[in-house]
Amino acid sequence: MELPIHIDRMAAWSLQEQLAGQLAAMMLDGRLPAGARLPSTRALASDLRVSRNVVLAAYDELFAEGYIEGRQGSGTFVVEDLPAPQRARPPRRAGRPRWLEKPAPPPTHMGEQEAAGIDFRLGRPSMEPVASQVWRGLWREIANELPPDAYGPPAGYLELREAVARYVARSRGINCDPASIVITSGSLQAVNLIAQVTLQPGDCVAFEEPGYPTSRAALTMHGARIVPVPVDEDGLDVASLARLEPPSLLVYITPSHQYPTGARMSVARRLALLEWARGADSLIIEDDYDGELRFDAAPLPALASLEHSSPDNRAPGQVAYVGTFSKTLTPALRLGYIIAPPALHERLVEAKRLTDFQTAWPLQRMLTSFINNDRYMQHVRRVRRRYAEKRALLRQAFASLGDRADLQGLEAGLHAYIALAPELSACELEDAARKRGVRVSVIADYYVGAPDRNGILLGYGGLDIADIERGLEVLTGIVRDRG
Amino acid sequence: MELPIHIDRMAAWSLQEQLAGQLAAMMLDGRLPAGARLPSTRALASDLRVSRNVVLAAYDELFAEGYIEGRQGSGTFVVEDLPAPQRARPPRRAGRPRWLEKPAPPPTHMGEQEAAGIDFRLGRPSMEPVASQVWRGLWREIANELPPDAYGPPAGYLELREAVARYVARSRGINCDPASIVITSGSLQAVNLIAQVTLQPGDCVAFEEPGYPTSRAALTMHGARIVPVPVDEDGLDVASLARLEPPSLLVYITPSHQYPTGARMSVARRLALLEWARGADSLIIEDDYDGELRFDAAPLPALASLEHSSPDNRAPGQVAYVGTFSKTLTPALRLGYIIAPPALHERLVEAKRLTDFQTAWPLQRMLTSFINNDRYMQHVRRVRRRYAEKRALLRQAFASLGDRADLQGLEAGLHAYIALAPELSACELEDAARKRGVRVSVIADYYVGAPDRNGILLGYGGLDIADIERGLEVLTGIVRDRG
Repeated sequence: MELPIHIDRMAAWSLQEQLAGQLAAMMLDGRLPAGARLPSTRALASDLRVSRNVVLAAYDELFAEGYIEGRQGSGTFVVEDLPAPQRARPPRRAGRPRWLEKPAPPPTHMGEQEAAGIDFRLGRPSMEPVASQVWRGLWREIANELPPDAYGPPAGYLELREAVARYVARSRGINCDPASIVITSGSLQAVNLIAQVTLQPGDCVAFEEPGYPTSRAALTMHGARIVPVPVDEDGLDVASLARLEPPSLLVYITPSHQYPTGARMSVARRLALLEWARGADSLIIEDDYDGELRFDAAPLPALASLEHSSPDNRAPGQVAYVGTFSKTLTPALRLGYIIAPPALHERLVEAKRLTDFQTAWPLQRMLTSFINNDRYMQHVRRVRRRYAEKRALLRQAFASLGDRADLQGLEAGLHAYIALAPELSACELEDAARKRGVRVSVIADYYVGAPDRNGILLGYGGLDIADIERGLEVLTGIVRDRG
Repeated sequence: MELPIHIDRMAAWSLQEQLAGQLAAMMLDGRLPAGARLPSTRALASDLRVSRNVVLAAYDELFAEGYIEGRQGSGTFVVEDLPAPQRARPPRRAGRPRWLEKPAPPPTHMGEQEAAGIDFRLGRPSMEPVASQVWRGLWREIANELPPDAYGPPAGYLELREAVARYVARSRGINCDPASIVITSGSLQAVNLIAQVTLQPGDCVAFEEPGYPTSRAALTMHGARIVPVPVDEDGLDVASLARLEPPSLLVYITPSHQYPTGARMSVARRLALLEWARGADSLIIEDDYDGELRFDAAPLPALASLEHSSPDNRAPGQVAYVGTFSKTLTPALRLGYIIAPPALHERLVEAKRLTDFQTAWPLQRMLTSFINNDRYMQHVRRVRRRYAEKRALLRQAFASLGDRADLQGLEAGLHAYIALAPELSACELEDAARKRGVRVSVIADYYVGAPDRNGILLGYGGLDIADIERGLEVLTGIVRDRG
């Protein structure tokens, strides 16, 4: 009998283990049926070109495990009472298994689109790469350090939390204790953790309309009932929010640069929102996803900083501030953080521990060094200069179109909203542009309900100058042709 | 008026933005009250040693934002109708906020204990470090590559999934399509994702008793009702499981090396479990947390491989196999994977996307290279040799104690269970050892219900030979003294 055994001398397992394992598998799947006689140890050793001791040891193992038995004078056999091989299994009942009865997570198309032509769509690459010299330096530090041999704190290494606290003080005016920070694997995980510790099935979450589909889907996955609240040029309409009955448990907002309209929430609105949250006993999730990519505009204070600005504020706080380093490095890096009031912070740490113990050490270590040596600030300065050139192109291209195509939301972030006159359908524009190799997003796709805007969205962060110029020529050409 | 303004020439924000931001903050918190007169642009520029253009630009911004107004001939003033400063806020209602009414995640003490003396406790460092030369080589590759500028696939980069598929075929006999793999941030995230897509509040999950507290807590956090099922020397008692009514939706097991008793599930039990799951329409979570750290024993086939071993198996499958690379590298690395049947896989990918988009690129890239160049196998071989020495010490130390302290579960993994005779209380032994600087875990702590075992657990992976020798001397001394 020729047995299909493959011995791998480079494998981590001993030859004896490999042999025993493969023989056992053959007995279980019926290739070596009950009662079959095994080759002699001498013959098998010679066939496989291994020492006879290896085969003897493997047979001993299989004997001890009850796979085989020796019969006096006649050799070694597969036992008769081995469990029936798998092919005797009864047919599975038809249809969807019980454990897939839970509704599937809401689908979202964000984040994985294939690049196509000149691609202004949101969710496409949207950043200037970090200088290769800086990148190299950072990872060489990791290479030269030995990794820790144990889990780190679920909230993140203290050095990184201290660095982030200094950074948000400097860049966003938020004064916080490093002890109030949780390091997360990106801002989306931050939103998930907040949902995990606060939401019970059916709880209401007020959400910007139009808004960021991925956060909306993540909240839904955690049982939220999403209540859309309209957005105008000053951000979330707090008066509409205040009319909700019962008041929503959470409210998710992007006040720095509303996603996707680009509106900045006015200071008056910010204060009104805080006031409302205090009265309604609601938690605000402030997703400052591109708060550090701010351009000509005055830096409006983060809600989290307004909350902390009053010296007599001993209240537990109503704001969970979510920040990210993905927008300025690479989205494939997955590094973010939450600044939360103490009682919430404690739960978030426990949830982070039960979710994935901690964000991986090499990433945390790299970011600490990046922030602390001012290379991060230098990088941000550098990319902002590059983005300034790109924004100038957008301004210039749309300047002459007036109200027919009104450019908005360029004060921050890496995308702009183009409000179109009613006679210019965003979908038709998108379609015409696609036929000429230029892709744009349509704002209607960011609504849950009926859209009250007609316009397109242009993400320009990841495109080079020449592509932006060519793409804008196509787009403005289409607008003019239909004028 | 002297204004406490700090200009940082190294900051990423322009001088004008810094000035406007700090002035706005002072107006909002009342340090610059409504109606207050601002310094002249010339005086402020001179005070701050910035050009007058900077101050002019900042004032322009504040004017445009509605913070300040000019009065003909008399200067620049804070507007009168600025929203009331924060200290006017009404007092918050007392007690716990609404958004903390959800029960807190179950506490678990695992993973973050302070090292103390000679520490055999589980959850402490439990590994031999990777050779520094290998580590350096891996991260230098990352340093020399530019990061991707966009999100990768949520299931993980294809190169890594292919490498993992080859690896599990070689090391665990599991033949799977790379398309059935999801790369996760550690095996705990894998368990969370499975829970996320399958569990609805109150669903029953059968769980080994005693069992792994962190997975149990994670499942509870996702709404599971945990049903403990006893474990004996052949692993989970499938007959007890089969008596549950209604049958549990999921069953979580660690068949290679039951956590924490160290039992290996027999092949007959494995087959019976698969059979039961098929009939009960239940999903098995097979957590193979240290399946690759297998020593003298024959490699028993993973449940996932038994399921795939039948050529006529066209059923959707009942096993979600969870693997990890943390046990052989560092727990601070957070890299694991799930091999799942197609319908489940699809949901897991969507849940992974909505949870954190993907596991970070540098980690995936590093692991791909580690596995593909056989350095990983070499590393595993090296650490297994080191562990063999340590295991020999344990065997030797307990050999003479007979039934009073019976060493079990040494065939795999990095911890052993010592069953104690009834007259030797595990808690007293733990206490006596602690007083002599040696820490151990007590098995009773791994039960949800009343413990039916008396014994201690020794994690030896991370201790050096000398410490193990000293620690074992203390422990066996205590056992002998009480004899």
